[in-house]
Amino acid sequence: MSVSAVAADQSVCASLPVLGRDVTVPLVTGGEVTYAALDYAASAPALQRVWDDVAAYAPYYGSVHRGAGYLSQLSTDLFENARRTVAEFLDCRDGDQVVFTRSTTDSLNLLAAALPADCQVFVFETEHHASLLPWRNARVTYLDAPSSPRQAVETLERALADREPYGPALVCVTGASNVTGELWPVRELAAAAHAHGARIVLDAAQLAPHHPVSVADLDVDWVAFSGHKLYAPFGSGVLAGRADWLREADPYLAGGGASRKVARRTDGGVDVEWHDSAARHEAGSPNVIGAYSIASACAALTEAGFDNLVAREQYLIEKVRTGLAEVPEVRILSLFGDDAPRVGVISFVVEGWNSSHFAAALSAEYGIGVRDGLFCAHPLLRTLLGSDPQTQGECGAPEAAPGEKSLNAIRVSFGAGTPDEHVERFVDAVKELVQDGARWNYRTEDGRCVPDTSA
Amino acid sequence: MSVSAVAADQSVCASLPVLGRDVTVPLVTGGEVTYAALDYAASAPALQRVWDDVAAYAPYYGSVHRGAGYLSQLSTDLFENARRTVAEFLDCRDGDQVVFTRSTTDSLNLLAAALPADCQVFVFETEHHASLLPWRNARVTYLDAPSSPRQAVETLERALADREPYGPALVCVTGASNVTGELWPVRELAAAAHAHGARIVLDAAQLAPHHPVSVADLDVDWVAFSGHKLYAPFGSGVLAGRADWLREADPYLAGGGASRKVARRTDGGVDVEWHDSAARHEAGSPNVIGAYSIASACAALTEAGFDNLVAREQYLIEKVRTGLAEVPEVRILSLFGDDAPRVGVISFVVEGWNSSHFAAALSAEYGIGVRDGLFCAHPLLRTLLGSDPQTQGECGAPEAAPGEKSLNAIRVSFGAGTPDEHVERFVDAVKELVQDGARWNYRTEDGRCVPDTSA
Repeated sequence: MSVSAVAADQSVCASLPVLGRDVTVPLVTGGEVTYAALDYAASAPALQRVWDDVAAYAPYYGSVHRGAGYLSQLSTDLFENARRTVAEFLDCRDGDQVVFTRSTTDSLNLLAAALPADCQVFVFETEHHASLLPWRNARVTYLDAPSSPRQAVETLERALADREPYGPALVCVTGASNVTGELWPVRELAAAAHAHGARIVLDAAQLAPHHPVSVADLDVDWVAFSGHKLYAPFGSGVLAGRADWLREADPYLAGGGASRKVARRTDGGVDVEWHDSAARHEAGSPNVIGAYSIASACAALTEAGFDNLVAREQYLIEKVRTGLAEVPEVRILSLFGDDAPRVGVISFVVEGWNSSHFAAALSAEYGIGVRDGLFCAHPLLRTLLGSDPQTQGECGAPEAAPGEKSLNAIRVSFGAGTPDEHVERFVDAVKELVQDGARWNYRTEDGRCVPDTSA
Repeated sequence: MSVSAVAADQSVCASLPVLGRDVTVPLVTGGEVTYAALDYAASAPALQRVWDDVAAYAPYYGSVHRGAGYLSQLSTDLFENARRTVAEFLDCRDGDQVVFTRSTTDSLNLLAAALPADCQVFVFETEHHASLLPWRNARVTYLDAPSSPRQAVETLERALADREPYGPALVCVTGASNVTGELWPVRELAAAAHAHGARIVLDAAQLAPHHPVSVADLDVDWVAFSGHKLYAPFGSGVLAGRADWLREADPYLAGGGASRKVARRTDGGVDVEWHDSAARHEAGSPNVIGAYSIASACAALTEAGFDNLVAREQYLIEKVRTGLAEVPEVRILSLFGDDAPRVGVISFVVEGWNSSHFAAALSAEYGIGVRDGLFCAHPLLRTLLGSDPQTQGECGAPEAAPGEKSLNAIRVSFGAGTPDEHVERFVDAVKELVQDGARWNYRTEDGRCVPDTSA
């Protein structure tokens, strides 16, 4: 069977079904439809497999690292095995640490708190705020948006070479843009960083759910991702990579679990001996269900095979892009151009439409869930839109007039478990809305565009 | 029906069943028994109701605050309603903020990061490390363990009055000890704090699952607790209280969700406008399942009625204490004495026994899950044991000899859903072990005492 036949085949989709696939939602125009969840880039539904694993474990839940009972021992094993599963999923090097956090945002804030003194940080303005903003105690160099992967590498090389003084440095880069879906040249950026004595952390929040991520092969120093975008929405995330900076840093949170020994001094103060392992940064009772759910998702994706998943996703991406290309009013947002490799995350604007209005109509009239706004990447949206962007447009905002610049955008995103019908319905809905307009009236309420149901 | 009749009645227990109540575990001596989860103070099983609510919601999971789709709107409502439910559960004042964190440890670290400049912190040495250690950027005064609630208040008043210079101050105090289960005089400590111009945060990790907590009535400035001790083990916790310090502080995590507007400056830097609401400290996609599970637990406990729950728990406490009192080799650990009000958390040592060995035998031979060690409260254990405590004892450690001081302790804890049979089995097991000794051989492995199954 050819790759395209595999991709079109529903078997891969069916082999990784997601929770909520049968959920129906009411339409403002009457009736109900199955919900088309096309906002995976914000948060993906749980894999059915992940849910089943969590449900099977839940009655056996017990305190981790803290009890003598059977369920505590079982839960501790489960938690530490989850760490190993994640390390394998990410193809970590010997000696790398896997720290369970609450999210990518948390992971990068943890790394930010572990930077050595006088570390300089280099980050493209195109990053999600989670990668852009955590470096509060460092000198940060923001790099202009590149127009190609090659320019990204050149821009970084130049900035690293020019740094003054030459000291410890960290590059933070996304693997796949949460706005354009475009893949960044991670391996080349890592090589550039290392050539200039810098380290690099990969924000894999949007990459890991869609592509295999090999820490060893990409040669990145750390990788961060979130469970809730990896089909495991139970409040956990991961920071994995080099142990040295983490071991030398102050514990991220101070509390139990991170502390090995605490004793009062004769002068009345308190001495603390902290753990050196991942526990150093995991104070408090671990979120064992969160960690286990991530491990379950890692296992499910690995077993399904990324070759199959990628082929299937490329098929869906082509369906969407081909469909949108038939609508002249639609402009897909891109930094690297049409041919750039990408994941199933596509942002666009529609001439003559306010993005919030358009997204509201997709939801209310078609049962399609997308996202409108600036996607927590304001500087990137400013670059892509060429306007002073606004988080939430009103129903009747300026860009309703043809020719006006958009203030924000619409994003459609998908992945494991997405059936053909969802993206087909989406493409048809876009065409219909552009051609015929919305069938319902909308009004602004609390800064959002919602169907006017008062009539 | 009298209170004691209500308490003895299984109906309250049955009305709040917990997950795992039918789980059986193997005994090293052969056969299986239902698991007696008596380690609630470390982490409690989920209420069946909480699990059912989570399971019902899971297919409807969607991104919070971030999507135009129906499920995103539904999830956002669920999340914000959870905030309101928690505020009601805690009887918060108008204007108080409820911030969802990952745990009590996280909540107190957040508050520590939000202290005003030059704030002094006052904390008893008897606190859990989560309350003892987060105040890393403040001057901390550690107060000696009091021997009565009255002495606690006097000690605090003296310390606050003596502070030099007189400036902003915070008192951090536990509501119920995670070691002795004893209630602390929170209302009186709050009055003392306020009389001396200080604020107070209540660590309610062990209190909230067992007693009603009224922020308004206790007049505490903040309260912190964990979902996983409140029968909602899905990775969320709460910090609730005064908005002013939180609003004025730097965001706890930097990232999306906390930032309202991000724009590059003409000099290449980045300007950030942060939210003023709870979102300021909740960067990253919220753990909506975690927050919802806490709200579900709050609703379930409120509906069951704390009067009933407290009466039932007091009945179980009396059963355990009366049973242990019949074993002269058992010494219950206490700061405030036999008559002090307490929750279902009881720590003790057994003369002639290593606590790890004893806990291992309770698990392996009776299917009872308790905890041994120092309970993340090392200075308190040093005070209670009168020895240099060790986190984990070996099977044949010194205190195996009668008359030697214990190096660590055993803790039994329980709450909603605990049947009589669990505490009866526990008391019988303690008596049998003390009288007849363990029936199996144990050995030390990775620093823990485990059954020797090599024979």
